[in-house]
Amino acid sequence: MIKQYMSAMGVEEAHYQNGDFEVTTPIDGSVIGKVTLDTVADVDTKIQNAKQAFQEWRVVPAPKRGELIRLLGEVLREHKEDLGILVSLEAGKIKEEGLGEVQEMIDICDFAVGVSRQLYGLTIASERPGHHMRETWHPLGVIGVISAFNFPVAVWSWNTALAIVCGNPVIWKPSEKTPLVALACQALFEKALAKFGEAPAHLSQIILGKTDIGNALVENKDIALVSATGSTRMGREVGPKVAERFGKCLLELGGNNAMILAPTADLDLALRGILFSAVGTAGQRCTTLRRLFVHESVKDDILPRVKSAYETVSIGHPLEGNLVGPLIDEDSFNNMQTALEKARNTGGKVTGGERVLMDKFPDAYYVTPAIVELDEQNDVARSETFAPILYVMPYKEFDDALEMQNDVPQGLSSCIFTNDLREAETFLSDRGSDCGIANVNIGTSGAEIGGAFGGEKETGGGRESGSDAWKAYMRRQTNTVNYSTELPLAQGINFG
Amino acid sequence: MIKQYMSAMGVEEAHYQNGDFEVTTPIDGSVIGKVTLDTVADVDTKIQNAKQAFQEWRVVPAPKRGELIRLLGEVLREHKEDLGILVSLEAGKIKEEGLGEVQEMIDICDFAVGVSRQLYGLTIASERPGHHMRETWHPLGVIGVISAFNFPVAVWSWNTALAIVCGNPVIWKPSEKTPLVALACQALFEKALAKFGEAPAHLSQIILGKTDIGNALVENKDIALVSATGSTRMGREVGPKVAERFGKCLLELGGNNAMILAPTADLDLALRGILFSAVGTAGQRCTTLRRLFVHESVKDDILPRVKSAYETVSIGHPLEGNLVGPLIDEDSFNNMQTALEKARNTGGKVTGGERVLMDKFPDAYYVTPAIVELDEQNDVARSETFAPILYVMPYKEFDDALEMQNDVPQGLSSCIFTNDLREAETFLSDRGSDCGIANVNIGTSGAEIGGAFGGEKETGGGRESGSDAWKAYMRRQTNTVNYSTELPLAQGINFG
Amino acid sequence: MIKQYMSAMGVEEAHYQNGDFEVTTPIDGSVIGKVTLDTVADVDTKIQNAKQAFQEWRVVPAPKRGELIRLLGEVLREHKEDLGILVSLEAGKIKEEGLGEVQEMIDICDFAVGVSRQLYGLTIASERPGHHMRETWHPLGVIGVISAFNFPVAVWSWNTALAIVCGNPVIWKPSEKTPLVALACQALFEKALAKFGEAPAHLSQIILGKTDIGNALVENKDIALVSATGSTRMGREVGPKVAERFGKCLLELGGNNAMILAPTADLDLALRGILFSAVGTAGQRCTTLRRLFVHESVKDDILPRVKSAYETVSIGHPLEGNLVGPLIDEDSFNNMQTALEKARNTGGKVTGGERVLMDKFPDAYYVTPAIVELDEQNDVARSETFAPILYVMPYKEFDDALEMQNDVPQGLSSCIFTNDLREAETFLSDRGSDCGIANVNIGTSGAEIGGAFGGEKETGGGRESGSDAWKAYMRRQTNTVNYSTELPLAQGINFG
Amino acid sequence: MIKQYMSAMGVEEAHYQNGDFEVTTPIDGSVIGKVTLDTVADVDTKIQNAKQAFQEWRVVPAPKRGELIRLLGEVLREHKEDLGILVSLEAGKIKEEGLGEVQEMIDICDFAVGVSRQLYGLTIASERPGHHMRETWHPLGVIGVISAFNFPVAVWSWNTALAIVCGNPVIWKPSEKTPLVALACQALFEKALAKFGEAPAHLSQIILGKTDIGNALVENKDIALVSATGSTRMGREVGPKVAERFGKCLLELGGNNAMILAPTADLDLALRGILFSAVGTAGQRCTTLRRLFVHESVKDDILPRVKSAYETVSIGHPLEGNLVGPLIDEDSFNNMQTALEKARNTGGKVTGGERVLMDKFPDAYYVTPAIVELDEQNDVARSETFAPILYVMPYKEFDDALEMQNDVPQGLSSCIFTNDLREAETFLSDRGSDCGIANVNIGTSGAEIGGAFGGEKETGGGRESGSDAWKAYMRRQTNTVNYSTELPLAQGINFG
Repeated sequence: MIKQYMSAMGVEEAHYQNGDFEVTTPIDGSVIGKVTLDTVADVDTKIQNAKQAFQEWRVVPAPKRGELIRLLGEVLREHKEDLGILVSLEAGKIKEEGLGEVQEMIDICDFAVGVSRQLYGLTIASERPGHHMRETWHPLGVIGVISAFNFPVAVWSWNTALAIVCGNPVIWKPSEKTPLVALACQALFEKALAKFGEAPAHLSQIILGKTDIGNALVENKDIALVSATGSTRMGREVGPKVAERFGKCLLELGGNNAMILAPTADLDLALRGILFSAVGTAGQRCTTLRRLFVHESVKDDILPRVKSAYETVSIGHPLEGNLVGPLIDEDSFNNMQTALEKARNTGGKVTGGERVLMDKFPDAYYVTPAIVELDEQNDVARSETFAPILYVMPYKEFDDALEMQNDVPQGLSSCIFTNDLREAETFLSDRGSDCGIANVNIGTSGAEIGGAFGGEKETGGGRESGSDAWKAYMRRQTNTVNYSTELPLAQGINFG
Repeated sequence: MIKQYMSAMGVEEAHYQNGDFEVTTPIDGSVIGKVTLDTVADVDTKIQNAKQAFQEWRVVPAPKRGELIRLLGEVLREHKEDLGILVSLEAGKIKEEGLGEVQEMIDICDFAVGVSRQLYGLTIASERPGHHMRETWHPLGVIGVISAFNFPVAVWSWNTALAIVCGNPVIWKPSEKTPLVALACQALFEKALAKFGEAPAHLSQIILGKTDIGNALVENKDIALVSATGSTRMGREVGPKVAERFGKCLLELGGNNAMILAPTADLDLALRGILFSAVGTAGQRCTTLRRLFVHESVKDDILPRVKSAYETVSIGHPLEGNLVGPLIDEDSFNNMQTALEKARNTGGKVTGGERVLMDKFPDAYYVTPAIVELDEQNDVARSETFAPILYVMPYKEFDDALEMQNDVPQGLSSCIFTNDLREAETFLSDRGSDCGIANVNIGTSGAEIGGAFGGEKETGGGRESGSDAWKAYMRRQTNTVNYSTELPLAQGINFG
Repeated sequence: MIKQYMSAMGVEEAHYQNGDFEVTTPIDGSVIGKVTLDTVADVDTKIQNAKQAFQEWRVVPAPKRGELIRLLGEVLREHKEDLGILVSLEAGKIKEEGLGEVQEMIDICDFAVGVSRQLYGLTIASERPGHHMRETWHPLGVIGVISAFNFPVAVWSWNTALAIVCGNPVIWKPSEKTPLVALACQALFEKALAKFGEAPAHLSQIILGKTDIGNALVENKDIALVSATGSTRMGREVGPKVAERFGKCLLELGGNNAMILAPTADLDLALRGILFSAVGTAGQRCTTLRRLFVHESVKDDILPRVKSAYETVSIGHPLEGNLVGPLIDEDSFNNMQTALEKARNTGGKVTGGERVLMDKFPDAYYVTPAIVELDEQNDVARSETFAPILYVMPYKEFDDALEMQNDVPQGLSSCIFTNDLREAETFLSDRGSDCGIANVNIGTSGAEIGGAFGGEKETGGGRESGSDAWKAYMRRQTNTVNYSTELPLAQGINFG
Repeated sequence: MIKQYMSAMGVEEAHYQNGDFEVTTPIDGSVIGKVTLDTVADVDTKIQNAKQAFQEWRVVPAPKRGELIRLLGEVLREHKEDLGILVSLEAGKIKEEGLGEVQEMIDICDFAVGVSRQLYGLTIASERPGHHMRETWHPLGVIGVISAFNFPVAVWSWNTALAIVCGNPVIWKPSEKTPLVALACQALFEKALAKFGEAPAHLSQIILGKTDIGNALVENKDIALVSATGSTRMGREVGPKVAERFGKCLLELGGNNAMILAPTADLDLALRGILFSAVGTAGQRCTTLRRLFVHESVKDDILPRVKSAYETVSIGHPLEGNLVGPLIDEDSFNNMQTALEKARNTGGKVTGGERVLMDKFPDAYYVTPAIVELDEQNDVARSETFAPILYVMPYKEFDDALEMQNDVPQGLSSCIFTNDLREAETFLSDRGSDCGIANVNIGTSGAEIGGAFGGEKETGGGRESGSDAWKAYMRRQTNTVNYSTELPLAQGINFG
């Protein structure tokens, strides 16, 4: 099934057919590849290789490093369809979203090329005569990337495009559910390298495996930055380990993303926004809409329309024109059912959430997206379940909606649909949404690469992609140069 | 002894004379105050008070918040001498350095006032028509500050000036060795508040105590940022605790700061630079010069001059015109002796390091600053001892000196004395010093407040004071506002 | 009348009582001072003095220069009432606005102090190995400031605070209608200098006179920057003269500022916004509201309320609690009458605009603010008359209102009152207002100092005050430092 | 001769063979093309077309606009050789420099693509509660570009890449000496457009002609920005004309660029730096090295080596492996001879400067580069002659050299060769070089696109290419949004 794409991208068959770790597709549960997992010793070797590469790469001028990423962008453009479809096959995303994910990779490459001639530090006014003060940014070291199944390639590219431009080699541990796309990305990176010409070996490496492999990366003092995307549970383990060894962390963890639907909202837009945010990627985006606070004045108008849209949304094979593909695996399905059960027990009115297409795909998990109507927010709604469940709760006062929106442990994405200027600006104000992302008249998912992506609280605090997210991949240095023949002290101190 | 200063600053006698925790001065070991320590329950109460203050303070406009800090600067100007002398009395700093520390407080206030009309976020080009994208910065929450004895007031002011301007209340746990200056700072803050007019209660609070009190702060989920200055050992405990609860950390830990003294250096300047950096504050600055790499061609010229300067440096009561005051306590003295003993055992040639003035100050610890000559860098030199020990090591090649300078676990401050452009710029380059601070023809200590202060590796990675250090006290948010009548998706995705 | 204030501020009587140029107050037309005008030769001498000062001042560290401005801010705080009242007496502003203007001076001083530790340039990634690239900002030279009567002191302070911090001396030519406040500002500056200690002579100088004196400044090649505030006519003369000698210009010229009053506007706020913007400073602000586009659905609601407010607004002596003071002089009154006459002739319905208080103040010009109702915008409305005339025009479609708002030669300030998010964001978008200032739910006047102040088109394009307006007072330099032993060329050129 | 290149780039023969304006090559003076010049009426039509395009293009999202420039970069990569050779043929540059110029076009495209997702404005702290303040950047309007023969394509691309990304159409008037490359650039732009898909017509237009055509552009009020590269004389005419109509100007005028060659310089590097900067492009770069201040201690060492290099530098057909091609025309040759004559008359010792290859190229002007030794700087050296003349002058004290370097009316590029840190940093300091470009151990010419390019004084003050030069192509707007239910005034004013 995957051979034509792998072959087009230059992945050797030996790499994905001869291993002893089976890779299944969520589309029908069949095995689509067999890869070889790395051992902890392999990880250490690769880290040492990367350290070596760092010594060389850090002194290559950044615009030259940017040229490699420009070429990666070109290669990705050529193989957009190949990689996009492979994402669908391995992660179960619908085709349009698989292609969108590759487009995101292309976008970040373009952006990083521009950044490669910037990496701006500061020159700063010094209080001492004959002194120059500056703040400069330097390459950081080996970057470890841990990514999740749901954005199996974009997250790598966000990190890699910036890390490489910033002068750092990357070691990537993809989800054990999606090793094949990782092999493909590595092959595409090597295509770019081939066009680029001379570069140190081991700029980009992948390590395949499970938690033990991830831990080997996390605990290794030679990994300068661990950029980890996944669950809050994972972050709660990774963070302290890295902190203990004084490494740096960039965490992208769970989200429990909400929309406030206000009386003045354009309901047509809102309906589309809800649908894409809540059921896109079968509810398995970090930024998936999970909570909907709807003003009581519009609830009876919008809710039937949402339900109706939910009923008609096409569910099935992600490459056959459907809007909703499968859940990633059985665990995911079970977690969803458990959450819905809890919701029912706390008085929630559940619509949807049933398994479908069992006949056609007995070993895969397709579900109808679920709506849970609650009178008020409860602990079930406050928990993140990585599946298409939308909790719908009414509100009367804007301030109450805002408070409920913030009243969860996570802080990734949030939005309001309103045409009321005061509501919108308040939502974006110092007392507004406490999330890393706050949108107006856009759903919670679907960020542009030009902004910094990430969130607060249990979402982990990391920022990737646009704005000055590149600074996470560099170390900052304050320089003062005395070019005078005196040695005045700061704060006017007179010593001796 | 301290009454006149405390009284001038408005600290009530009851606060520093009636407690059961004795505060001694390192000058002669005598008790100069008796304070009451907080309990863990007190800490929790104060945190809840601060949370309340946060709700109000975050919506006060930042330039208005800046006005409070401007007034604090004014108050500090009025009481510069009072507070500076109190620092000398409680921490043993010489007068000039005590005053310098207060000047640093004044400087950061001035700077923070300017920042209060900035707090710049970004407006960003969006890829979607009819969309506006922005990055905004919002108040973070309650800030916990843990500081050390050696900069007993400046570190508080760095954090407080920025935190307050950024919209956050502060809870400060000073070193248990310096509670009196904390009482004074709190009184001065209240003077500023009185001039300011209406403000929420509990914007600034202090908590006095030992590790248990510090832990109560560190572990409390309502402390949004723990800004902790101290030892690497402390940081290794604090970091994981805060990471586990998804709080934010700003760590300023140990330094093992070095100077490279190159053949073209202006030796007169270098001598002064060494002296101030190595013996200033009796070697008890985070940025104290601890390692000197001297080019073999100038070693015989400079080393005798350094030794001679060491011999003549005046040691004694910090308010009586001496350049070197006491060590903070007996532990500090013992650690120094242990390190010197180790140095001797590994072949180091030790000059100085003896206790002096025992007759005059039997309960205090005055030492002559020590020089340890080593043939090459060893593990003793690679460890930080918080006392005036200078390891002197020769080098032949610049690249070797650079490698040795970086070959320690810490990464705070570093410098080179040279008039060779290539050496200087290489030292500041991507393959140069790996410290957070890298100076040319300036010693390792004595930073201006306009730059970001802090370091890499085991120094903890935090940055305080100038540049955009204020961002540590805020949370970042990416906003996209759709003001069109369409709902285009990023990456050109077409959904449904 | 002015003696007590002048004396308090330290202006010697000889400077304002013995001259042969009479200064009259617009309050009652009486002579309040007699000053000596400068000759062209005086101007040249002062410029040469300033050049000398520049040589010294440019190498004083910027934070030290900032200290002078901090002290100026302190002096202004002390004399806020003195100077504010003097502004009222000489320029006819009401007391509250005179004080507000001094507050603006204080604010810019605070801001400039912060900037004095920034003056940020960039460090930039170089494409060549062993190269460092930077962008730095350096002092520019002597700054010439030409200001108008209506902000007789704030404009000087905007320029001076930044210019001084940036390392430049200032020569100020105030309006010949307001020389007394200039003498006062100079005296206050000298008070600050006295506190500051050693500084070069001639950092701040004033030149009094008319157009010939202004021209002597404008045409002198030693004036690096001419910062001129006044009429478009003036700017049309100044600009080319400065351009011809390759000097720099910062022009703040006319405005023809408009409000769009939309159906969803909070009319109570809008009423207050109209009143302050249209009649404040008797319509003599650059940012005075001159055109009101009111949606037909709210016209009948708001217009009577505006008229009613206009009728009840108190007109009279500016220090006696009134809201509207006198016009600056007879010319101003005549221009107003001419404009109203034209308006009537083109079908406008005029309310108000009559001279009042002739009995009490026969030699002064107090008028009732005028409203001119027009069916559509015409050339009268498209011209700026520096007097309290408000043209009111209806609109049906938002896009039409936007087009009319932009359809004038000037481009200073603009605003919309609306609670409709789409309208607001469109107004602020790439196809929205073409002015330098665009507000939502705020009138056209009353800018904060933290933003850049100025406008497009015939307003002249200059920017003063906040944001990075300081860059106008510096010169930019791109540095590349080669610290390698090779000489690679940019763009990979291989030469020879 | 040019057909194969024109054809490859898609220029129709009719456009360059059928006109009545003859284009000659400086290589041998032969006619290589016949183009049709525009009339003033044509210019007006094209400007109106561009205005129309602006209405549409300004609302296309900037990252989308960036995609067009990315495609232009791709097209330029494909046709690098074609366009580079055409530059050689029409402007006489040697091949390596022609290719380098195209590389510069490619570089700026890459950079501008990155910028297209930035165009960063600011969000700013407001002093008023419930208010948001921002600074935004908007498209400016039609950009007029006037370029010179010596960088016949790069200057267009610098302006066009940024202008297009910023939302503006461009009208380009190339030098009448190089219309053919302009036709080629336009054709390449159209190739990019074809790949891009739907875009407004007339985004890029060229106008061919002489001064009258240039004036028609300069004087047209619909040209929002005139970006003009050429002589100081030209700038002195253009600047006032644009100022009078309140347009914006970006002037890149003459340079009289100098090198200080200090005692510690690496003379091997310096020799190469002198050679490339002084004789590259036959001395016809804006940044050509024209003045050499050599320390007396190294003069006898370096000068013979420079002379020797000058003697051996190959002069001839620019596409046949030579380092020095022809002067652009006879006028240029005559000006050079006049300058040399003056130099001799003022005591200068002239080496070189003779016409060569007259037999082979009777209608072209090849010269040996000239060295003029002067005892001290005089008015001849202070004038710019656009030809390969290098004035060599000795100095004793660094400060004297610095003063002489600055003592010219122009302020474009400058450099020092030194390994002395103090000299280097002083050269880059507030009292150092007064040029827009100041390099250390790099010649005066050959800037990277990542820095801002341009200079001070009679060089005109404009900045192009990197850093935030894009801001010249946009208009700045300060926004304040009141989302509260109150209307507080700035500066705390209380009105009515």
